[in-house]
Amino acid sequence: MPRSLVILSGGQDSTTCLYWALARFGRDHVTALTFDYGQRHRIELDCAATVAALAGVPQTVLPIDTFTALGGSALTDSGVAVQRELDPKTRLPNTFVPGRNLIFITFAAAYAYPRGIQHLVGGMAQTDYSGYPDCREATLKALEQALRLGMEFDFTLHTPLMFKTKKETVELARDLGALPALAHTHTCYHGRQPPCGECPACILRARGFAGAGIADPLVERFKGGVA
Amino acid sequence: MPRSLVILSGGQDSTTCLYWALARFGRDHVTALTFDYGQRHRIELDCAATVAALAGVPQTVLPIDTFTALGGSALTDSGVAVQRELDPKTRLPNTFVPGRNLIFITFAAAYAYPRGIQHLVGGMAQTDYSGYPDCREATLKALEQALRLGMEFDFTLHTPLMFKTKKETVELARDLGALPALAHTHTCYHGRQPPCGECPACILRARGFAGAGIADPLVERFKGGVA
Repeated sequence: MPRSLVILSGGQDSTTCLYWALARFGRDHVTALTFDYGQRHRIELDCAATVAALAGVPQTVLPIDTFTALGGSALTDSGVAVQRELDPKTRLPNTFVPGRNLIFITFAAAYAYPRGIQHLVGGMAQTDYSGYPDCREATLKALEQALRLGMEFDFTLHTPLMFKTKKETVELARDLGALPALAHTHTCYHGRQPPCGECPACILRARGFAGAGIADPLVERFKGGVA
Repeated sequence: MPRSLVILSGGQDSTTCLYWALARFGRDHVTALTFDYGQRHRIELDCAATVAALAGVPQTVLPIDTFTALGGSALTDSGVAVQRELDPKTRLPNTFVPGRNLIFITFAAAYAYPRGIQHLVGGMAQTDYSGYPDCREATLKALEQALRLGMEFDFTLHTPLMFKTKKETVELARDLGALPALAHTHTCYHGRQPPCGECPACILRARGFAGAGIADPLVERFKGGVA
């Protein structure tokens, strides 16, 4: 069975992808890779570690200090407030770190290459409400080609959520047995546990679970004050 | 005049590219970007700063701590010796950091994007003796496409040395008035100033200057014990 590397942020989508990889490649052929890139909410890293442990796969955390040095994005810079509105110039949310997913995937390939791991898995989706252009299939196909040529290694980049709605992603998580792990993921843009329920990320997540007719195990975990 | 960003390592090729950009875009439209990625020889960073100052262009240094964490390459890991022989498995020199140029160019684009800088310039060359696959035109064309799609910005990646021999690169440097700056570049794999003259990088550089019939200003600078 070929080996795979899953880019695991500790969020809903990458956790679902981790369980997709378990089903596709088998537990002994899955490794998780998490980036410590100066996330504003360190809870993301805790979630990723918990999810990897629940899934029973080894996890590596790689640091990237460059985004913080690049500055100016709300996801990494605590001096920049998250805005609901899109940037009027770029029409992107100001949480956009230009090329962030390109960097993640390229570093994942650099990690995979000397280990002979050919299959890379990421939670990128075109249907993501925020429309990050580095999540789109055309972008990732071009990057896959650059990685194949640039490392002379026949990488395949899997993005099982690419064309799924959030509802369909929840249904996939259910079918893969990922719901217990989703209780330990993060989504909230404000980094809150229990989630704030009001930010765009919380609202989107809630809609997905509501659409699938499934109770969000993360919300359930905090009901009645139990953490 | 459009603006440009030159990836400046402080070596011969990127310095020549900096002067190419000065001629192409004009001094006021050129910025230099240098990566502090844990080079074994810190003198490279000093050279890059000196070259930028000589050329009269602003320089930004961005840190990348990820390569060191990835480990195992002779260019960044002081525990790994530089070998003349190619790795028998990969047939690449063990100075190869998988995808290093892909990362450099993507971070350059991430730096350029919010500043509206459309033209990226790098010293990558297919004729480079070591045959790094991430220096080849096909790789970089695929990456250029990934960057354009991934940031929705019409980047152009210029690689003026792509098909030049070292002799031709020296001739281009002469024609661009870059020779005085080349006196302050580094090449030696052992990080020596004056250069060791015996490592593959020194030998390749010497051949280029000999082929062009030009004295290497770096070697000249150290003649008679003057530094």
